[in-house]
Amino acid sequence: MKIIKDALAMQRAAFAEKQAGKTVGLVPTMGALHEGHLSLIRQARRENDRVVVSIFVNPAQFGPKEDLKKYPRPLKKDLALCRKEGVDYLFHPSPEMMYPQGYRTFVEVEGLSGLLCGRSRPGHFRGVATVVLKLFNLALPDTAYFGKKDFQQAVVIKRMAADLNLPVKIKALPIIREASGLALSSRNKYLKGKERASALVLNRALLLAKMLIRGGLREPKRLESRIKMLIEKEKQAKIDYIEIVDRATLEPVKKISAGTLVALAVQIGKTRLIDNMEAL
Amino acid sequence: MKIIKDALAMQRAAFAEKQAGKTVGLVPTMGALHEGHLSLIRQARRENDRVVVSIFVNPAQFGPKEDLKKYPRPLKKDLALCRKEGVDYLFHPSPEMMYPQGYRTFVEVEGLSGLLCGRSRPGHFRGVATVVLKLFNLALPDTAYFGKKDFQQAVVIKRMAADLNLPVKIKALPIIREASGLALSSRNKYLKGKERASALVLNRALLLAKMLIRGGLREPKRLESRIKMLIEKEKQAKIDYIEIVDRATLEPVKKISAGTLVALAVQIGKTRLIDNMEAL
Repeated sequence: MKIIKDALAMQRAAFAEKQAGKTVGLVPTMGALHEGHLSLIRQARRENDRVVVSIFVNPAQFGPKEDLKKYPRPLKKDLALCRKEGVDYLFHPSPEMMYPQGYRTFVEVEGLSGLLCGRSRPGHFRGVATVVLKLFNLALPDTAYFGKKDFQQAVVIKRMAADLNLPVKIKALPIIREASGLALSSRNKYLKGKERASALVLNRALLLAKMLIRGGLREPKRLESRIKMLIEKEKQAKIDYIEIVDRATLEPVKKISAGTLVALAVQIGKTRLIDNMEAL
Repeated sequence: MKIIKDALAMQRAAFAEKQAGKTVGLVPTMGALHEGHLSLIRQARRENDRVVVSIFVNPAQFGPKEDLKKYPRPLKKDLALCRKEGVDYLFHPSPEMMYPQGYRTFVEVEGLSGLLCGRSRPGHFRGVATVVLKLFNLALPDTAYFGKKDFQQAVVIKRMAADLNLPVKIKALPIIREASGLALSSRNKYLKGKERASALVLNRALLLAKMLIRGGLREPKRLESRIKMLIEKEKQAKIDYIEIVDRATLEPVKKISAGTLVALAVQIGKTRLIDNMEAL
């Protein structure tokens, strides 16, 4: 596995692979890799001649009061995991490499970026879209892999790729969960003591939603209030949003149907967690 | 010469050329081609295996009260010129092809876009940056060619290319002028009767600036007032801006030096014209 820190070196290596007719799969990550990331890497490995994993905790997608500084960075462990999965290139640039002095270009996916997580995290998806576009231009992937836990991120990136005519196929893969039902997230590491048990309320809420929808419930308002009641019983949990939306536009739906997404953001202690489920 | 109207067909053709190891030069235009455009096409022809010219009057870079509708579109003449210059691909998409229903992704080069022309044309450079990025992703050029008449445009695009790590070299080529000194522009066609003679005031102002700077003038304020006096003598001319700026940052300079740009925007009747000159 080649570890590359220089942007131009990454672009040159990717260009050489493309010139040699190799297909490239890219898995963009912020590190602190878990089985969710590994599922993306494995699929990239199966589908491409070359696999690039990027590890970059992207300052542009963190708000001023968010967890940029304390975000976990277990680099040695991450490198070992990537080696084990047969990754070809590990791209690990510095913030200064990605955003040098005078940097001023940003990509905005209008509308989509202001919904759901965009409401409590202004600027977040602008930072995500910008860094992902940069990573695409550096790793020159045929296919890029994202997880559905960050569903809105995948929607924003698919929209950006279509709108900007990017020659990249975007794949969004299923959420990976612990046996407890908790969706894997690098931020689960922040959960202390009883918070881990409290965090299960997100998955419980989605299971309730699934049951109610299977039972025939189609009214978003009624589903929302049932989910709300369940989450509010959990003392440490504070709802950021419960959204029942179209999975392509992320706009609220009037009636639950096959294209509907149930998405949650819940604060557990100081840790903000998200989870979601496709309704049918 | 292959005429392509479909975005995906353009991308496939460009991809096939790149796969075959050919270099591609792109000249993005809004058509109504003149000797300025032809100088770009000729340089692209000399430096690349394949030359793509795009003709697209980009709605995203026109303000609501601007000349989108009446902008000249002499397509047959443009095609004949491109054929004569040995262009390989002429990309001529429809607005609906470039901005389909639901389109919502835009690129913003912050700061630079709000200066000079950006002040009287809000959103203009956002539209330019966005369409140029799309054209890069469709034509996959090694090198793209722009004219220095639109100096700010070239600066914005160079900044975007650097910031987003685009694998494209940007070249900005010298302004081409009529024998009268008038900088070539597709908008010169709007000038009626005596306006053509009035329009020469832009070049005269720049020649005055050159003379004064050669004579030792280094104070931007004094240069500006001399230019202002000269332009104000021309009855039909209304100054939009006179700017004496750093040619990389486009910020006003305190002292005129080798990196200084003198840039003008002047309304002649209903036609807004721009021109510029590097100071030394």
